[in-house]
Amino acid sequence: VSHKTLDELHPADIADIIERLDPRLRGQVFAQLDDEQRAGALAEFDDDAMAAELMGGMNESDASRTLSEMDPDDAAELVSELDYDKAEKLLRLMGVKEQNAVRQLLGYREDTAGRIMTSEFAAISHDGTAADAIALLKGLDEDFETVRYLYLTDDDGRLCGVVTLNHLITANPDDPLIEISTEELVTANPEDDQEDVAEGIAKYNLLAMPVVADDGHILGIVTVDDALDVLEEEHAEDLQIAGAGSDGSEGSERAGALAWLLRRNVWVFLWALGILALTFVSGERLRPQETLVCCLPLAVALVLAGDSISYVTNFFLENDPDDEDSPSLVGFAFKSLGVGVASGMLVALISVALVNLLASPVMPAHGLDGLLGPALTTGGIGAAVSTFVSFALAPTYLVVLRHRDDKNRETSGFALSILAMIVAVVTFVVASALLSGPCGLWWAS
Amino acid sequence: VSHKTLDELHPADIADIIERLDPRLRGQVFAQLDDEQRAGALAEFDDDAMAAELMGGMNESDASRTLSEMDPDDAAELVSELDYDKAEKLLRLMGVKEQNAVRQLLGYREDTAGRIMTSEFAAISHDGTAADAIALLKGLDEDFETVRYLYLTDDDGRLCGVVTLNHLITANPDDPLIEISTEELVTANPEDDQEDVAEGIAKYNLLAMPVVADDGHILGIVTVDDALDVLEEEHAEDLQIAGAGSDGSEGSERAGALAWLLRRNVWVFLWALGILALTFVSGERLRPQETLVCCLPLAVALVLAGDSISYVTNFFLENDPDDEDSPSLVGFAFKSLGVGVASGMLVALISVALVNLLASPVMPAHGLDGLLGPALTTGGIGAAVSTFVSFALAPTYLVVLRHRDDKNRETSGFALSILAMIVAVVTFVVASALLSGPCGLWWAS
Ligand SMILES: [Mg+2]
Ligand SMILES: [Mg+2]
Ligand SMILES: [Mg+2]
Ligand SMILES: [Mg+2]
Ligand SMILES: [Mg+2]
Ligand SMILES: [Mg+2]
Ligand SMILES: [Mg+2]
Ligand SMILES: [Mg+2]
Ligand SMILES: [Mg+2]
Ligand SMILES: [Mg+2]
Ligand SMILES: [Mg+2]
Ligand SMILES: [Mg+2]
Ligand SMILES: [Mg+2]
Repeated sequence: VSHKTLDELHPADIADIIERLDPRLRGQVFAQLDDEQRAGALAEFDDDAMAAELMGGMNESDASRTLSEMDPDDAAELVSELDYDKAEKLLRLMGVKEQNAVRQLLGYREDTAGRIMTSEFAAISHDGTAADAIALLKGLDEDFETVRYLYLTDDDGRLCGVVTLNHLITANPDDPLIEISTEELVTANPEDDQEDVAEGIAKYNLLAMPVVADDGHILGIVTVDDALDVLEEEHAEDLQIAGAGSDGSEGSERAGALAWLLRRNVWVFLWALGILALTFVSGERLRPQETLVCCLPLAVALVLAGDSISYVTNFFLENDPDDEDSPSLVGFAFKSLGVGVASGMLVALISVALVNLLASPVMPAHGLDGLLGPALTTGGIGAAVSTFVSFALAPTYLVVLRHRDDKNRETSGFALSILAMIVAVVTFVVASALLSGPCGLWWAS
Repeated sequence: VSHKTLDELHPADIADIIERLDPRLRGQVFAQLDDEQRAGALAEFDDDAMAAELMGGMNESDASRTLSEMDPDDAAELVSELDYDKAEKLLRLMGVKEQNAVRQLLGYREDTAGRIMTSEFAAISHDGTAADAIALLKGLDEDFETVRYLYLTDDDGRLCGVVTLNHLITANPDDPLIEISTEELVTANPEDDQEDVAEGIAKYNLLAMPVVADDGHILGIVTVDDALDVLEEEHAEDLQIAGAGSDGSEGSERAGALAWLLRRNVWVFLWALGILALTFVSGERLRPQETLVCCLPLAVALVLAGDSISYVTNFFLENDPDDEDSPSLVGFAFKSLGVGVASGMLVALISVALVNLLASPVMPAHGLDGLLGPALTTGGIGAAVSTFVSFALAPTYLVVLRHRDDKNRETSGFALSILAMIVAVVTFVVASALLSGPCGLWWAS
């Protein structure tokens, strides 16, 4: 990549190229860029941590100059990735105006409208004319490309209307702004979740949504390009919760694919563990072949325990608790119980059906040995109980997931399923041991 | 919902409300809207089939008037949902200009840039001035809200530059357009996939992307609001392939959740089938407890067969074959073979480890009966072979998936996993029968 080529590229392409480079080359290529290209590229990295690392490699005065060059929202995203000392040093080296703009955004929590808004918007008193508005726009510096609407404020400085650039451009110079404006405004609160804001922008086909304080003053705007970034980020997050996606790790390596398979199949280890546990718990009561056969249905119970978590995450992904028409938690709990009863019964039924099929005279090996039938039946009932418990716990998992999402903490579906499977093994072993004990199904033999 | 309230709502909200209504009420509420509201709401339905149904309930002259009122891209989307006769009738009742605009879009395949572009853009000769451009914009009708850029054409009518409204608004009337324009243009071909276009709009932070014919003439623009819709649509599609998401069916019903669980756990039935099949195939050679123990590892092989399909769909979702830096098919094939060998070996190893643990003297029930060890080992090796075959076939499944995606046919991950599991059962039964036969592992006993 020659300097000349880099010169002609869009910042998003420069960021793309650098992200794909060998880590040792990244700094070198990055160093060849001029201030403006650096600022542009840093704003466009998909991987914010990588952008912060490159910024960390620059000397401090260059770094702070680059930050000043960036849109405040992009600068804030980058600074929030740095450690506190470094961040403070760079902020203090920036110009006062830029520094304040970034500090204001950093005052809001991550993933809120306040954090991703830009303070580069245009607002004017509602009693001006089109000519006044155009004069205002002419006075703005070049960063004015984020200006897609002109916001009108009333005498107290509160947002009261909006004029599109399209209407402004076709107005006569002395048209009062109030006449070419609309009062229909969709606004966001700075504490709103970034995903809700992005979805609002998508729903109402906006180019930007104003972020308004409780007193009605406009604080900034979230632009549609940032809404697109938010939706792509949330999309990746959803795929992660759904169990697909690159999972943060390098999925392209063979080791990555194996690790992924192992994570998906932890149930196999828990199955083996369950077999060993039942061997110990049942002591001399069960012979090895009976223990092994009894544990056949445990495999199903474990996979269903994992499924109960997918069932929870699917519900989580599809239903926003803020939506009026989203099903209630109580409804979800009832439904989960129903699913638990039905699938538990199905597991027991399949086991019993298998016992009857294998014991039937059509089988070449002359039916099942004495205790194998009761062993498989016991396992089937143990697995049914375990499955019921897995789904009965679904609402609890949902509450945990929602609570953590509210606090903007990511929850790994993997950790939840391990938890669910451990519960399933314990339930199965206890139930089967009781059933195969003196007071259990063994009377059948 | 009173007429008065509906009056004040945004079309996207009206569409939302109607979508949530009881099907019988929908038509009644829809009938209360005026022409403009109907056109707005129909463009904003998430469910195009529902919008088409409502349109089908209108009388033909109302319906065609409503279509004329809509943006051509929204009208085309709706018309494409109607059956041919109805669509032709409505198109013929529309004004000539509107009709032609819609027919032009319908000439392109579904899910392409040509199908989702709008013909409502503004273009002007590159030798004009800012005043000429503003005069042009003033002459446009109200639909001009999709105009976010002014495109410049050269003497042959080919796209050669673009002026943002921001630059136009701050220019002096006699500034030559060429001086306030930029030649850096990202354009789409009408045959381009809608997802690629939407991702380009996101990457380069555009408000619209021009769609340009091979001869350089501009055909239309894809606007950022439609890019957002496309990405949301593709997001839902990805979640569906990843196995989450509402799956088209009503996931909210309890029966839906059970059906979902059954679909995810077809492997249990194939497992039972495998046990019965091995019983028959091995005839008198294996006793029932040996068959059952031998089939323990089949559960793992079946779940891994399902995983091999997730492995394929993940790769499919993450890697676009058109990307230069996406891994090659050959690379994927090698990686799949490696994953198959490694995970197959792991399955065999776990089985052997379980045999050794159960046979060890620390176990309360005094070790395994004579033939149970070899039976479990045989099953472990059978499952290993079966797992290897599942992953060895991964590239074949990927090719099928990509081929069908190119033809815009949706592929159900479910059907693919059933296929993979049937292959896995057959492989396992054949391998285990051979191993437990006269030339197999039975010598160990
Ligand atoms: Mg960014
Ligand atoms: Mg940006
Ligand atoms: Mg962020
Ligand atoms: Mg929209
Ligand atoms: Mg921004
Ligand atoms: Mg989310
Ligand atoms: Mg979030
Ligand atoms: Mg639409
Ligand atoms: Mg479509
Ligand atoms: Mg597609
Ligand atoms: Mg962007
Ligand atoms: Mg449109
Ligand atoms: Mg797609």
